[in-house]
Amino acid sequence: MSNNYEKILDKIKAGTVKVGILGLGYVGLPLAVTFALKKVDVLGFEKSGDKVKRVNSGKNYIGDIEDSDLERVVSRKYLEATEDFSRIKECDAVLICVPTPLDRFKKPDIKYIESACREIGQNMKKGTFIALESTTYPTTTEELMLPVIEKESGMKVEEDFWLAFSPERVDPGNEQYKTGNTPKVIGAMTEKGLKIGMGLYSLAIKHMYPVSSPRVAEMVKILENTYRLVNISLINELALLAGKMRINIWEVIEAAKTKPYGFQAFYPGPGIGGHCIPLDPFYLEYIAKKYNFDLAMINTAGQLDNLMPHRMTVKISSSLNRQKKPINGSKILFLGVAYKPDISDARESPALKIMDEVAHKGGDVMYHDPYIPEVKTVQGRTYKSLSLTDELLSEVDCVVITTKHKTFDFDSIAGKTSLIVDLQNAYTEETKRIFKL
Amino acid sequence: MSNNYEKILDKIKAGTVKVGILGLGYVGLPLAVTFALKKVDVLGFEKSGDKVKRVNSGKNYIGDIEDSDLERVVSRKYLEATEDFSRIKECDAVLICVPTPLDRFKKPDIKYIESACREIGQNMKKGTFIALESTTYPTTTEELMLPVIEKESGMKVEEDFWLAFSPERVDPGNEQYKTGNTPKVIGAMTEKGLKIGMGLYSLAIKHMYPVSSPRVAEMVKILENTYRLVNISLINELALLAGKMRINIWEVIEAAKTKPYGFQAFYPGPGIGGHCIPLDPFYLEYIAKKYNFDLAMINTAGQLDNLMPHRMTVKISSSLNRQKKPINGSKILFLGVAYKPDISDARESPALKIMDEVAHKGGDVMYHDPYIPEVKTVQGRTYKSLSLTDELLSEVDCVVITTKHKTFDFDSIAGKTSLIVDLQNAYTEETKRIFKL
Repeated sequence: MSNNYEKILDKIKAGTVKVGILGLGYVGLPLAVTFALKKVDVLGFEKSGDKVKRVNSGKNYIGDIEDSDLERVVSRKYLEATEDFSRIKECDAVLICVPTPLDRFKKPDIKYIESACREIGQNMKKGTFIALESTTYPTTTEELMLPVIEKESGMKVEEDFWLAFSPERVDPGNEQYKTGNTPKVIGAMTEKGLKIGMGLYSLAIKHMYPVSSPRVAEMVKILENTYRLVNISLINELALLAGKMRINIWEVIEAAKTKPYGFQAFYPGPGIGGHCIPLDPFYLEYIAKKYNFDLAMINTAGQLDNLMPHRMTVKISSSLNRQKKPINGSKILFLGVAYKPDISDARESPALKIMDEVAHKGGDVMYHDPYIPEVKTVQGRTYKSLSLTDELLSEVDCVVITTKHKTFDFDSIAGKTSLIVDLQNAYTEETKRIFKL
Repeated sequence: MSNNYEKILDKIKAGTVKVGILGLGYVGLPLAVTFALKKVDVLGFEKSGDKVKRVNSGKNYIGDIEDSDLERVVSRKYLEATEDFSRIKECDAVLICVPTPLDRFKKPDIKYIESACREIGQNMKKGTFIALESTTYPTTTEELMLPVIEKESGMKVEEDFWLAFSPERVDPGNEQYKTGNTPKVIGAMTEKGLKIGMGLYSLAIKHMYPVSSPRVAEMVKILENTYRLVNISLINELALLAGKMRINIWEVIEAAKTKPYGFQAFYPGPGIGGHCIPLDPFYLEYIAKKYNFDLAMINTAGQLDNLMPHRMTVKISSSLNRQKKPINGSKILFLGVAYKPDISDARESPALKIMDEVAHKGGDVMYHDPYIPEVKTVQGRTYKSLSLTDELLSEVDCVVITTKHKTFDFDSIAGKTSLIVDLQNAYTEETKRIFKL
């Protein structure tokens, strides 16, 4: 094995290491392209035959990747995708970028990690370096992954393979920080594993930050996202109070930002969306219970977030009520279903939850989003994006602004419609026809 | 009155305006000195005859002020202090810097503001500009101060005087940001009031940031401190969980700080102290109830903070227990009672609350703090700071590190005592004799 250790370090040094990436989604594909652009051989594993085909024909489907970058690395054979997980044995290193969702009871659903570990255990060669990138609760790498991999492979960590955790920090739509230039944390089970991981990732990523164990690295990612959940929940709650007190919370936030230390601005909105903030903290809450520990701050933030779609529906109802209209039978147009501006991702989007509740109350729900042609809500309703015509704007009873895409011309919209519920600070002032969060 | 308006603006322009400052404590005295250093005539009003004497003899008692600055402005007659509130009539502007504490039931105690307003109303001349700097709940200026001042003076706002809110942002011990170079927010009841306030404060303060109303300015300060309360509570809670999971939370925080966006580090400790963070958010919680609104995040943070002294006592008890000792009868030495490092302020210090609980359980409590010679706890116990001798360190059963003063030599302390409970990350690693939070 010391043989294998020298071997993989030599390959990393020579740039001849072959990297397998499991899962070619928002995290895995950018990571694969980032390695491949540095002329590292990447083999991407993906269960979706459709994604495999698209990658292998150089067709990009992730917003954070330049189309031309994907084309180039595929045509130059640095990146190949496959559905055949037995090819894991070709790889010197395997990086796992699979989803870690919650089930309908907000419990961690780690079946994708377990499945990835089985595939790896059954197929890897001796001397493989394995790292998990998916956000999960502390102890996952050591206590959940390790036994599965050892059992399936019949191999032993440190003797036959190395295991680490290195959390992805992908921020979809961030123009400045992409996979390659965002510092990356890594914690491995052993010192040798850490050395391999540091060397491997450094081929593609500028700044690596080592920590003492996988569980520390796991906690880092959860802390980052818990911080965001708690602060967004706080500002949402304060926004609702401020509304009642005739205080413009956005003006308050801009003023607070003039404090040169000890403050970071968060902005209110109709709720928390995306695949990280609404999920990750509940991974921690889950494992905390094993330690007889209740996480009150996360719990409270979760309760607030749960209530937001309802509170937003009440806002819509109150606004319609001023024009002597009920929700039931009114035409209500939602502008934007992406969970944040200028991206095409509607996962966990608060807009969809509000649409469900408004539809349930008899509202005639419709939406427009230039980036998302159709959606399916949590409760299973399906909608197609309508064209934002003058006719549509004039015929609806209420426009609800749920995402502040840069492409929206809010001034023009305000001139063409009778009632606006602005949940995203698209308008500075409230008027008789514009109601703010 | 338009006459008065031009008059005060002219005086501001000429630098001949006379500024009264009510309350010469942590906020008022630095503000007074900052104005006086800019050659503005300042008259400080203070009920404590002792403080008045000290100021008038040029003797400084606030850490953030250079002794020589106070001496200079007093000797050159730019600053004078008085107990005689009838002299408010000499002033063109009056700035209120009085305490806004909570009572024992965590309800806002605004008696100092009310009393200041009565003094001002009874004594001011026409054309006075009044601003409150004390942190308080939104609507205080408009709904609490205004009626009192109008009633006591028989004058009308805008016609006879102007009223504004401009929150102090004093951060005791901050070497970089002092009163003069910290941007300052101001919201006034009228445009003329805002113009006077901007001009007046700009004589002493580099960056003024105007907002649309006093209540917005009131909310700004509360947002800033609520943000801190919530985030310190969150990291304290995560630290307690991390301890159970064998995760070093400080290592986690350092690693999370490598994220170049969307994260701000807060550090755990034995609880929340000082005169702002533990108090201000509860002002907001109080007024929220008037609007039928419960602030769940603040409430939860408050609960966590309430429990911290108890949890820290349990930590001490568990650590002693490993050495087969009970709290009852053990000699327990607390290092540091200031609420943060390198200052002499023990207000709301968590150390005092832990000392109370440990003493209540029969512990033989003692403390050492180089900056604070004696303290009185919430429950009324009094202690004097002991000299930190080798003999003391060797004879106590447990040293509890509650404040991380730079003057402490932790390595030396560790070599001389048998058991340390480190609540402030003074030591990197846990050992058989050092237990971390």
